[in-house]
Parts: sequence; structure tokens; C-alpha cells
Amino acid sequence: MGLWDIDKIEYVGHAKGVEEGLAFHYYDKDRVVAGKPMKDWLRFAVAWWHTFNQGLVDPFGDPTAQRPYYKYTDPMDQALAKVDYAFELFQKLGVEFFCFHDRDLAPEGDTLRETNANLDKVVDKIEQNMHDTGVKLLWNTSSLFTNKRFEAGAGTSPFADIYAYSGAQLKHSLEIGKRLGAENYVFWGGREGYESLWNTEMKREQDHIAALFQMCVDYAHEIGMDAQFLIEPKPKEPTLHQYDYDAATTINFLRTYGLDKDFKLNLEGNHANLAMHTYQHEIRVAREAGFLGSLDANQGDKLIGWDMDEFPSDLYETTAVMWEVLAAGGIGPHGGLNFDAKPRRTSFTPEDLFRTHVVGMDSFAAGLLVAAKMHEDKYIENLQEQRYSSFDSGIGKSVEEGKASLASLEDYAIDKPQAELIAACKSDHLESVKATINNYLVEALAQA
Amino acid sequence: MGLWDIDKIEYVGHAKGVEEGLAFHYYDKDRVVAGKPMKDWLRFAVAWWHTFNQGLVDPFGDPTAQRPYYKYTDPMDQALAKVDYAFELFQKLGVEFFCFHDRDLAPEGDTLRETNANLDKVVDKIEQNMHDTGVKLLWNTSSLFTNKRFEAGAGTSPFADIYAYSGAQLKHSLEIGKRLGAENYVFWGGREGYESLWNTEMKREQDHIAALFQMCVDYAHEIGMDAQFLIEPKPKEPTLHQYDYDAATTINFLRTYGLDKDFKLNLEGNHANLAMHTYQHEIRVAREAGFLGSLDANQGDKLIGWDMDEFPSDLYETTAVMWEVLAAGGIGPHGGLNFDAKPRRTSFTPEDLFRTHVVGMDSFAAGLLVAAKMHEDKYIENLQEQRYSSFDSGIGKSVEEGKASLASLEDYAIDKPQAELIAACKSDHLESVKATINNYLVEALAQA
Amino acid sequence: MGLWDIDKIEYVGHAKGVEEGLAFHYYDKDRVVAGKPMKDWLRFAVAWWHTFNQGLVDPFGDPTAQRPYYKYTDPMDQALAKVDYAFELFQKLGVEFFCFHDRDLAPEGDTLRETNANLDKVVDKIEQNMHDTGVKLLWNTSSLFTNKRFEAGAGTSPFADIYAYSGAQLKHSLEIGKRLGAENYVFWGGREGYESLWNTEMKREQDHIAALFQMCVDYAHEIGMDAQFLIEPKPKEPTLHQYDYDAATTINFLRTYGLDKDFKLNLEGNHANLAMHTYQHEIRVAREAGFLGSLDANQGDKLIGWDMDEFPSDLYETTAVMWEVLAAGGIGPHGGLNFDAKPRRTSFTPEDLFRTHVVGMDSFAAGLLVAAKMHEDKYIENLQEQRYSSFDSGIGKSVEEGKASLASLEDYAIDKPQAELIAACKSDHLESVKATINNYLVEALAQA
Amino acid sequence: MGLWDIDKIEYVGHAKGVEEGLAFHYYDKDRVVAGKPMKDWLRFAVAWWHTFNQGLVDPFGDPTAQRPYYKYTDPMDQALAKVDYAFELFQKLGVEFFCFHDRDLAPEGDTLRETNANLDKVVDKIEQNMHDTGVKLLWNTSSLFTNKRFEAGAGTSPFADIYAYSGAQLKHSLEIGKRLGAENYVFWGGREGYESLWNTEMKREQDHIAALFQMCVDYAHEIGMDAQFLIEPKPKEPTLHQYDYDAATTINFLRTYGLDKDFKLNLEGNHANLAMHTYQHEIRVAREAGFLGSLDANQGDKLIGWDMDEFPSDLYETTAVMWEVLAAGGIGPHGGLNFDAKPRRTSFTPEDLFRTHVVGMDSFAAGLLVAAKMHEDKYIENLQEQRYSSFDSGIGKSVEEGKASLASLEDYAIDKPQAELIAACKSDHLESVKATINNYLVEALAQA
Repeated sequence: MGLWDIDKIEYVGHAKGVEEGLAFHYYDKDRVVAGKPMKDWLRFAVAWWHTFNQGLVDPFGDPTAQRPYYKYTDPMDQALAKVDYAFELFQKLGVEFFCFHDRDLAPEGDTLRETNANLDKVVDKIEQNMHDTGVKLLWNTSSLFTNKRFEAGAGTSPFADIYAYSGAQLKHSLEIGKRLGAENYVFWGGREGYESLWNTEMKREQDHIAALFQMCVDYAHEIGMDAQFLIEPKPKEPTLHQYDYDAATTINFLRTYGLDKDFKLNLEGNHANLAMHTYQHEIRVAREAGFLGSLDANQGDKLIGWDMDEFPSDLYETTAVMWEVLAAGGIGPHGGLNFDAKPRRTSFTPEDLFRTHVVGMDSFAAGLLVAAKMHEDKYIENLQEQRYSSFDSGIGKSVEEGKASLASLEDYAIDKPQAELIAACKSDHLESVKATINNYLVEALAQA
Repeated sequence: MGLWDIDKIEYVGHAKGVEEGLAFHYYDKDRVVAGKPMKDWLRFAVAWWHTFNQGLVDPFGDPTAQRPYYKYTDPMDQALAKVDYAFELFQKLGVEFFCFHDRDLAPEGDTLRETNANLDKVVDKIEQNMHDTGVKLLWNTSSLFTNKRFEAGAGTSPFADIYAYSGAQLKHSLEIGKRLGAENYVFWGGREGYESLWNTEMKREQDHIAALFQMCVDYAHEIGMDAQFLIEPKPKEPTLHQYDYDAATTINFLRTYGLDKDFKLNLEGNHANLAMHTYQHEIRVAREAGFLGSLDANQGDKLIGWDMDEFPSDLYETTAVMWEVLAAGGIGPHGGLNFDAKPRRTSFTPEDLFRTHVVGMDSFAAGLLVAAKMHEDKYIENLQEQRYSSFDSGIGKSVEEGKASLASLEDYAIDKPQAELIAACKSDHLESVKATINNYLVEALAQA
Repeated sequence: MGLWDIDKIEYVGHAKGVEEGLAFHYYDKDRVVAGKPMKDWLRFAVAWWHTFNQGLVDPFGDPTAQRPYYKYTDPMDQALAKVDYAFELFQKLGVEFFCFHDRDLAPEGDTLRETNANLDKVVDKIEQNMHDTGVKLLWNTSSLFTNKRFEAGAGTSPFADIYAYSGAQLKHSLEIGKRLGAENYVFWGGREGYESLWNTEMKREQDHIAALFQMCVDYAHEIGMDAQFLIEPKPKEPTLHQYDYDAATTINFLRTYGLDKDFKLNLEGNHANLAMHTYQHEIRVAREAGFLGSLDANQGDKLIGWDMDEFPSDLYETTAVMWEVLAAGGIGPHGGLNFDAKPRRTSFTPEDLFRTHVVGMDSFAAGLLVAAKMHEDKYIENLQEQRYSSFDSGIGKSVEEGKASLASLEDYAIDKPQAELIAACKSDHLESVKATINNYLVEALAQA
Repeated sequence: MGLWDIDKIEYVGHAKGVEEGLAFHYYDKDRVVAGKPMKDWLRFAVAWWHTFNQGLVDPFGDPTAQRPYYKYTDPMDQALAKVDYAFELFQKLGVEFFCFHDRDLAPEGDTLRETNANLDKVVDKIEQNMHDTGVKLLWNTSSLFTNKRFEAGAGTSPFADIYAYSGAQLKHSLEIGKRLGAENYVFWGGREGYESLWNTEMKREQDHIAALFQMCVDYAHEIGMDAQFLIEPKPKEPTLHQYDYDAATTINFLRTYGLDKDFKLNLEGNHANLAMHTYQHEIRVAREAGFLGSLDANQGDKLIGWDMDEFPSDLYETTAVMWEVLAAGGIGPHGGLNFDAKPRRTSFTPEDLFRTHVVGMDSFAAGLLVAAKMHEDKYIENLQEQRYSSFDSGIGKSVEEGKASLASLEDYAIDKPQAELIAACKSDHLESVKATINNYLVEALAQA
């Protein structure tokens, strides 16, 4: 049974009755859906920080997690042991990617040089395991928010020493990304924001971090690192306001500083909700602007004001996400679905760690099946095409062709009576659309 | 085809493919589920104010609704014509109940006496139609919020004349309820709250309205009206704070004033969300306290801060609601599901009016089917029984039997080592529970 | 006493005791503050739609407003009479600017041609009054959201006829702006968004409206209209999502379509809150990006999820706004403070209409006084300069001068011990900053 | 200078200029306001967990706090040393009360017996210091939420062993309260709620905790402990829903279980906001129902969805709180203002610990001064009396005297024309009220 005392998780087909065995009911990795194997649409990744390091704390409670490697009490011993547990978990789940922050892997030393040395020992072992198993690095990133030195930011810290340290830390993190063949490299600005505008020079801070991003781009070119750079938006928490508030705000930042060719976005469902958006909205914004990079697979609770990082189980949301992914032809150029998710504090056993990933993977596989059936029928495509059809000819076409002016529009409209205008408006019977999506959900999954 | 130019809506069985015809796919009114016909579990009602009077305005837009009876321009003519349209719609939908505010039915005159006279003419016609069709009155209510005289409240108005007028209006409204055999009578305190605490004597206002409720109880006894009295909680909108904030707050009010024997609650999904609760939470609170009276069937958007009154289509929510209803053995003593819901402004045709009710009815029928399958398996019951089983014997049982004291608990616990305490805590694998509910949803509906 | 039966409002100096007479306590229009008369910093404007047309409805209530011109029952008669009432109110308040939507001024006809004819009659009268009184037009705009034809948008309507009509309507609105010497021209996209992404081609809709904006720019050039074009962001309400969500999102839109040279922003406090931002945040974003155009002076309640449009009275907020304005040297190139605000439904008398403007004007005048005292002392400037001083030399300066690289930062930081890094971080004692701002508030106003 | 290297904080009078020295500008403890010394109105208390134990972590960051007693690395040594630091801080601030959880004071052992032994050593030292300094215990409480054994609740845990342990822990905590002369005893149910209703028997859980509360009442009687029992409401965080949601919900719970004579409420500003209420609202609800017990002095940010526990600085809020306190004649029978507040992570020095308390104390002292001036003038009292005056005679009086019925109200109102009813409604000119409160704020503090 290996280190985890859990069997490899198998696809067993549609739930007989409704029992909750430890098996996939929808995720059948090689099954071809919409022209590609499921695993290539979904590209699941395990998040080191949550899956291996998260003790299941909350602001009012101690850790509850029970993990077999807690028997290793020396930090470096535990860090190295976790690599074995990690790769066994990847393989038992059938997950082909993983993600990590530099600080997830190994303890810090007193200087960055010592910290890097600790890190490199663990990376050596990871590299060997990647080679042996074929598991790949979806992305890595650098933790520029946990240590107290980042109390007022990293790339936006008012303190130049902290800024310099951040750059130095990023340098080695990029080197590791290159060494391990990271497909993407993520920047999450958890401290890049403000507690109060009164003591904050917002533009100056943004100038600073833009310069740091440019240095990263330059250094990646210098060392031949070709990972796709991604920024992960989040509106607030831990700070009162973070600069990468949501997709649109982040794209605006990238355009302002001429970084839009070098960066795309890593979007997350729970972060979308904290910005009062749906996950689908954020993906749509990025997709249509050409900035869809990768996705963090989790969910929040729309009535809750903090980041819950729950494993995804809401099929409406996974369906909407996968519909956007199908429309985009994939999750960005090199993207995947990273489980930035943790079990609830009350799901604390090692088995729960597997169960929760299975729930997440199955929920996204189910969403893919529903969305694929909708695409196959061109249900949404036809509905939209019909709705905008008045722009395919006549005055509408003149607008799309750039031939219209206020004068031409006035000529067209000035004598139209109200009744004729109202007749041009067609009902969208939106409620029936929602009911039809319900039908798709049942049909697609009952047949799965 | 009748007044509406729409055929009677039929049950056609499970959606073939996923087409969105104007038919029921789940609501098969006489089908027996959990021991009762669907229609008796659901007891759908049409809300006069939304279905017939709502022009589909919003705070920034004029009405968009297209309704055949708009051809009647005299207010009384239109009011009387609407009765015919209403009863035809009830029958074509197969809905056996309806609800109304006094002011929905007929225009006001200059005095209450004149207003009552207008109202009685329409009530005469309604009474005849009820007799002819067998359609029943789930509840009626009195609009004590629309007219400008209620700008600062009705039963909590600081102005005694307005308070007196409110009581007078309620008197006639109760008389109509008795006459039409209302199964319930609802009070919604849309203006009973405050804009600012600075100019508000909150307790005095609550004393006033409690006195008014008592007068209503007394008058109902006097005239032999036996409708169940219901209060409908809503936390805010139109005012900054309404006294009937949520279920718990309203029950507290009823207990404070000794009204708890005479009133139960009419709960609504969208109102629950505005109070930052789920609909299931509000129903659970009322159910377990013995205050579940009736339900308003609608849904909101948890990222939106105002009352949307959308027709229900979210199957997670209808499943949760119907699970609670099954656990209660029914929706209160005389309750039903009243569609306090309106089409979107973009769903403005008469056909949309039928479509939206069909979506709402089918969504609740689907929720009933899923919840009934869960109950049949005792899935949740077993899970809960197991989870609390340590209270079925030993120290736990002594607590439930009222035999425990701090001293007996100390004796039991004071020398237990931490490891033993932790071992007593069992994982709830909550994520798997959510996945199992997904399975139930697909299974129950695929078989439907 | 004139049409309104109210005397001209005078500045009487600091409130003796605390009485609430109908007089200015802080707004002394010609008093020089920070180098300019108060009136030139504030440039107050009255909003026609709220001040003259708003009946004080809410989604559950009829109008409560009592206005002297309601005696005119013919729509055109009332529209013309209101012009007299408006200019008298402007003068009695000492307000030098006003704003309007085309549809505020005159009733619609059956065709746009007829509508324009109605409108022009009222504009003739306004033009004469402007000439006679010297009152100026801060901005005008076009209502592309109220009429039911805009149920699914105007510039983003899926229906080409509606799009064409919108362009035609804008054409005449721009002509009126030119004729009346509008200093700005505002676009508020109240219907330019979506109810559901499922039936929405978001990018196509944005392409359409961007084209329409470009046509407006072109037409303004053609007719020699030099008003500053402004977009007013609002995140939601009436729709579920509006494209001009907040300042950053709108700037991103403008940059995407190459409209950033021709447009700035008109920001509003209540809209900021609905996007979960402070008003100060939105102004800061626009100011630092060079997009600050004009301001809507109102306030919301941060615990409320809809647009309240309350007259501003929160001195913390007016202080923060005016601090940003002082930092910018003024409210945009031609901006002012437009009272997009309405009395509460319970403040329904004509006198309340004057009272509420006085409260708003005095609150902003007070904010100006507090902010000016802070600027005079360079309190915030010094605090910020000190906080970022490590970027004025050494490694920090090398970053600001563009001379740093990841390698140079690594050289600098790699051997710094943790203690040295922590020592580089200085406490911001943020709580004391807030207390100091309290002190400024009392000091500045006690001396006023 | 003592352990803290900080001088005793003195009252220096009104801020000259606006400098932010380490001194009180409003809090002059013996100054008589509204008939009592300031210190007796305010009864400030220091919260052990925040002031001494809080490392200034957040969910994404390590502790930043710098505290002199961190040099003690043995947990018991540090625990004992902190007592000295604590009492010196109390005296230097001139704070006469403190509060603590059992677990704040000393580390846990493997069994409760060992834990209690650790605790008693620290309590011995505290008792001596209380005797020596005269500082008193406002309240103590028991941490039934931090340790992982409470992952699913304490008094509502589904696991009887955990319930028993909770009772045992409470027993000793009550004994300590008696020994130290606690004026109140607080219960905060941070884990008494649910993550999901699906696995929760809500009523059974509430039955359990009510039984536990009754055991506490009984035990207090048994040992002659006369502290006022208090429940502290909080709606959510750490759980998805907590049973003591807000004041009204908690009062309802107490009434349901017959505990309403033995418990009052401890209210907190930030918790109020998380329940979407103002702090004033929660206090008003408790005050008018006779449940005002004590107050936690902190503030949140209404746009933020988690508990910030910021030191209070908003003078509008402190004014409203103190107005309610003045109306109640004091903060409950034995209540005070406990600083359940922590410095921001960026305010990490020992001096900041003093600064933040000074800001909090001064802000509440300022609020008291403003509210007292309003009370002195009976500004709000008169305004309210006038507003409700129609209930002092005639039909209104008959309602208040219990002599009205629907019939008597109908007689009164049925023939009143609309115009007469509207004339009975008086404008509340709410905006002017807000402006007047601004005037009070400036006047009261400028004269302070």
C-alpha cells in the first residue's frame, strides 16, 4: 500500500446507487472528450503548500491535520521525506502536475544563501522523482508574503532592503523553475497592496513592482527560461486592498507598464468571489482579452468574506469553467487546474486528503462532460448567434465594419416609432436557459 | 387557446435531449413521492403582485412587460379583467393556490371606505372564480408599504393617524381572508424598520406593532377566521434595517410579546441571502423551533445586495429546501410554495410568464425528487445519527438526560490525555458528503 | 421669497451651539483656501434628475416628494416650469453649475425626431436662463437606460436598431452639450453589462460600444465640441455586472480600444462602495493614472448593497476626497462636485431639498478645510516621504533609476542576516495616523 | 522607566496643533462628565490575548510583533514574566481592568489536571498583583476553540468526550473567576456553529450547549460566584455560521432555554459589522431588551469580510456607542470597554502597543464627550419625543394604553381623505440631523 496506506484511485464508472467509495466516477483520464483525453483538458496539479504543508489552521484554531510524515521532527528531514509522500500521492491520484512556492519545500536559514542551500537539497530530490515518474511542474512561485520581513510588501515594500531581498529570492526561484522545466511561473502579490491610502504612495509602489517584473522577464530571457509568466489576482486578504484586484485591474496594470506581452493570468474561483465576481466572469474577461493562463481549482462560499480554498464540488461552477475552457481550446497555452484547496478542519485524516482531491477531480471531470455536451450541440453558440444576428447585416453590419457614424445612425433611427423599436427587442427567456443547463447537467452525467 | 393564447402545460416526462419546450419534465402533480402526491408536498401558489401586476421595472428602468390585459386602460376594468386572466393561468399551469395583497387587486379611492368598495368588487369576482375552479387562497396580506402615507412605517409609523389607518386596512383584509377561506394570512413589514437609529425609538415602535398584531389575533378570533398567521422576515430593503430581520430575530420578537402561539413564519430564499444566510438555514431555524409556516419560492444571487425575486432554478437550493420540508412532514400546517418571483426584464413576453412558472415548478419538483431519494436511503439521517452517537450512551447520555454537572464532567475528563481526546474526534469527510449529494442529484433526476 | 418660498442661503459662520438653521457653516464661497476660493475648488453642481425629477420612490414605494411644480399636470408645461424653479434654486443655493440627462428635461415623443423637438424647447429656455444668471453646465449626458427599448443595453444592445437609436440620441445630446457650453460630457453605462454570461458575447458587446464612443469622439471633433468626455463607473445595479465596473476596469477598457486619450472618469462615492472600494481609492487610482475627470458627490452605506445616493455628510469621506483633489490641484481639468444625491423618502418637503444641498455643500467645504490644513502642514506628504526614503539613495535609488537587475539585488541581499532585514522595516504606527487625522478634523473645523 | 521603557501616559489636554505625542488628549480619567468620572463611564480593560499574546499573525503571515518578554523562551517562564509586564502596562496606561481566557495565561499540559496546575501558578501571581495595584478583573472566559480537540465545537461538539472536557475546563475557569473577583464571566462560542447543515443536528447541538450553560449557572450558585454571565455574539468566522449570530438571535436562544435571567450580552463592534449591523444597532437591541452587559471596544472595516479587531478610532462610532451607554446609565450592571483589539501587523513595536491603547481610549473618551453634550441638550431625546408625539394623546394614546382595537381604528380612519393622512406625516429632515451631529462632534471636542 506504500507510504500512504491507500490504494491507487481507479475510475469505476458512474456511481452505483450513490455510495461514496474512494474512486473516480467521472474522471476517466484517457477518455476522449471534445477531441482530447480528459487529462489533457484538465491537467490537474497538486499544490504543495496545501496538500503537504497545510496543517488546517484557521485564525482561531490550531492545526488539526494528521499526516504520516509528522513523525519526522527535524525540518530538513521532514522536508525531504515529504518528497516521497508527494510523488506517491501524485501517482495514486493519477495527477501529472504539481506546483510549489520556494518556501513550501524547505526551511529558511539566517541568510538567503543558507535558505537557497536548504532549498536546493529538496529540489535535487524532486528533480530525481520527476525524472523517475514523469510528473511535471505546472508552475512554481516564490513566497514573498509569509515571512515578517514582508509585513509591508515585497516588490511594493517601502523598504529598499526588502525589495532587494525579494528580487534576490525571485532570481533563485526562476532558476529552479528553469531547472525543473516549469511550464509556467506564477506571481501572487499577497502583500502588494495597502492597509491605508494615507501612508501609501500607490503609484510609486506600482512603479517599483513593475520594474521588478521587468527584471524577472529580463532574467528569464537571460537564462533561457521559457515558462509562461502569470499573475494571480486577488482583491484583498491579507491586506485591505491588493493591487492585482481582479482580472481587469491586473490587465490594466500590465498594459500600463508594457508587461502585457510577457504575462498572462492565473485565475482562482474563490478570489473571483472575494472580488464579487463569478469565476466564469473572471475567466471570460481573461479569455476574451487573450490573458487566460492557468486556473486554480477551488471554491468559496459567496456569503463568506474570506478565502476558504475549499475543494471544488459545485457542478454549476465547474460546468461554467469548463465551458469557457472549451471555448478557449484549452486552459491557456500551458495552463492546468491547480488544487489551491485544502480539506476542511473537520476532514483531518490522511484518507481525507485523497478523498478531497478525488471530489475535486471528479467535479471538474463532470463539469467537462456537461460543458462538452453543450458545445457538441452548439447550444450556447447558437443561442448567442441568434441573439446578435441583427449585427450580421444592414445597419448592424455597418457598425461592425466600421462604416457607421452618428449621422448614419441618426438617419436610420430618427423616425422609427417606439413600437417598431420595441419589436426589434427579442425576449431572451433567460429562465428557460437556466433550466436547459439543468437538463444538460443531468443528461450528460447520467450518460457518463 | 383562451385569453392567453397558450396551451395547458403538460407533464411530458424527462427531457428528451435537452430541449426547452413549454412542458413539465419533473412536475407530475399526481405522482406519489414519499407517500404523497407531488402537488401536496409542493402546494404551488401564484403571487398576484408579481405575475399580474409586475411591469418589470427596476430602479433605473421603465416597465418592459407585455401583458394582454394592458388593453384595458380604466383601472377598475383592468382589475376585473385580470381576474379572468389569472384563473386561466392558474388552470393552464395546474397551480391550485394563489396569494395577493389587498392593493394588488383594485385601485385605491380617496378614503379607505372608497378603497374597500373598489376592492370588494374584485373580491366578488375572485370568489366566484374560486368556486368555479376549485383554486384556493394560500394566503392574502395587506400592503402597508407602497402608498406614501407609509413613508415612515405602518404599525411602526411615528404618526398615530397612519397607525390607525393601518389597523383599519388590516381589518378589511382579514375579513376578505375569512371570506375567501385563506389558509394563512401573511404580514410583511417592509416599512417596519428604520433609516436611522438617531430618530427612532425602536422599542416603542415594536411595542406599537406588537399591539397591532394582538388586535389582529383578537379580531380573527372574533370573526372566526382560522387562517394561520405568518410573519415574513426580510433584513433590509426598502429600509436600512427591518425589525423582522431573519427567522431567529422574528421568533425572538414573537416570544418577547407573547405572540409565539399565534404566529409562524413565511420564509423566502432571497430574503435569507440578504440576511447573509442560506435558505436552508432559515428553514432549519424555523422548523426546529416549530415556526415553519409557509415558503416563498424564489432565488437571489449571493453576490448581489438587493432583492432579485428570480424564479428558482438552482437545484442545490431546491433540494435543500425540500429535504427540510420532508423532514418536517410538510411545509408548515397549511403552507405552500408561493412564487414571489418575477421574470427578468429581458423575459417580457406573455409566454415568458408561463415559462418562468414552469421553470420554478420543475425546479422544485426536481428538488423534491432528489431530497426524497436521500430520505428514502436515510442518507443524511444515518450520517447524523452516527456522528452524534457518543451521546447515546455513557457520559453523553447523562448530558441528554439532564444528569450531568460540571463536577461529573470534570470527573470524567480531568485525567484524559490529549491523544485520547483527539481520538474521540471523528473526521466528517464533508467534501465527500457534498460529492454524494451531487450523485443523488444526477441519479434521482436521471431516473425521473 | 420667489417660487420656492425660501430665502437665499447665507454663510453665517461656525455653528453657534449646534443649531441646524438653513445656512452655511463652512461653505464661504469666496474664502480663499489653499490659494483658491472655496467655490473654485468645489465647483458644486445640481443634478436635474434627482433635484427636480426624483419623486423619492423606492422599489417598494410610491413617490413621497412634495414639489411646487407638481401643480403643472401637462408634461411639457411642467418641464418648462421646472426651468424657472431650477435656476432660482441654483441662485438661492449659490451653486454655479448643473448637470442633466436629455430625458430629464422633456417628455419623449413617439419618434426621436418628436422627442428632440420637445427637448429643444426646454433647452431654449435653459440657454436663456444660463445667459441671464451665469450658471454653467458642468456636464450633460444621455439617458440610454430608462426606456424599455434599452432593456438589454444601448451601445451593447444585441439589437442593431437599438444601437442605432442610441447613436442617434447621443448625436443630439452632444449637439446640446456644445450649444450650452458643457464643460464635460458624461457616459454612464447603466445597461451596458449582462444578466447572464450564458447569453452574452462580452467582447462583441464591448467592441460595439467602443465603436460608438469613437463615433462620439469623431462627431465632437466635427462640430467643434470641446467638452471633456467622461465615463462613470458603476459595478452593478441595474444589471448583474456592468462593464465599467470601477476605475481600473474602465481605464483598462479605454486602453484596450485606444480611447484613453479622449476620456477621463467621473467617479462617485456610492458606486465605489458597491465595487467594495472606498471613494478615496477610486479617486487615487484615477488621479495617479491621469484619468481624474469629475466627481459625483454622494454617499452610500457600506452595509447596504444598493445605490442609496445619499447627500454626503461623512466628514471622514469628504476629507479624504478633498485631500486627493488638493493633491491633484483640482478635480480634473474641468471637473466639479455634482450632487448625484436625493433626499431620503422621509425628507419630502421643498425645504428639505434646500437643506440636503446645504448639508452636502457644507460637508464638502468642511472636508476641504480639514484637508487643506493637512496639506499646509505637509502632514501626509512628510509621512510618506519618510516612509519611502530608502528609495532615495543606494540600492533603492538604483531601482528607481532603472539600473537594478535581479543579479544586482542578489549581490546586495544574499548574505544579509534576518535581523538586519527586520531592522530595515519601520513601524508605520497606523493607528496614531488615524488619531492625528481626527485631531486635524477637530482643529480645522473649530477654527473655521 | 520600568520593564517597558515607556513613561506613564498623561493627560495633556487638547492637541496643540495636531501632534501625535504619546499622551491623552481627551481621556482625563477623573473629569466628571454627565455626573460621573470618565473612568467610571468607560471602565477600560486590556485583553490579555491581544495585548500580550498576539504575535500579529494573519492567515498568510508569520508574527511581526516585537515584545520584550520574548527573551523568555520557556513557556512557563514567559507566562509568569508576562504578568509583570501586564500590570506595569495597566498602570502606565491608567487602565483599571483586564480580561483573559484561561489558555492565554499558561501553556497546556497533557491532561486537564496538568493544564490547571500550570494555570494556577500564573493565577497566583496575578492575584498578588491585583492586590498590590488595585487593578480588577472585568471578566475572564475559557478558550473552547483553539485546541484541535474543539475542531467540531465544544458545548456543541458531536463528541461527548469533548463536551465533557469543555465542562471540566469551564469548571476551573469559573473557580478562577470567583477567586479573582471577576465582575463578569464571558462565553464566546467560536466553534459553536456549523460548516454544513447536512451533517448537523442544529437543535440537538443547541440543547447540549444550553444544558452546559445551565450547569455553569448552577455551579456558580454552588460556589457563590456572582459574576454577571455574558454571551458574546459573532455571526461567523471561524465557522460558516455561529449560533450566537447577533444580539437578537442570542436573546432568542436564551429565552428558548430559560436562560434569559442569568445571561446578558457582551457586544463587539467588529462582530456587529460581520452580521451586517452597526455597532449602535446591536447595543440598542440589547439595551432596550435589558441584555446590555459589556462591550468589546474595537472596530472593523465595513468593506472587509473578516474580523479585523482594529483599535477604535472612528469618532462617529464611539459617539454612537457612548450615546447608547449614556441612555442606559452605564455599560450594563458591571460592564466595561474591553480592548479586543490588536495593532496592525505594520505597528509592531512595543511603543505601538501603548500608542494603540491610547488611540482607543482617547477615541472613546472623545465619543463620550460628544454624546454627553448631545444628552445635555436633550438633542436626540427632544427630536424623538416630538416625532412620536401623536401617540401622547387621542387615538395614539388609546393604542399605548391598550384600549384600541381594529374596530376602533377603523372608526377613526375609514373616512379620512388621503390629503389628511399625508398631512399627518412629518418630514424627519434626516440629513440635517446628521449635519447637526457633525456640529456636536466639532463643538464638544474643540471645547474639550
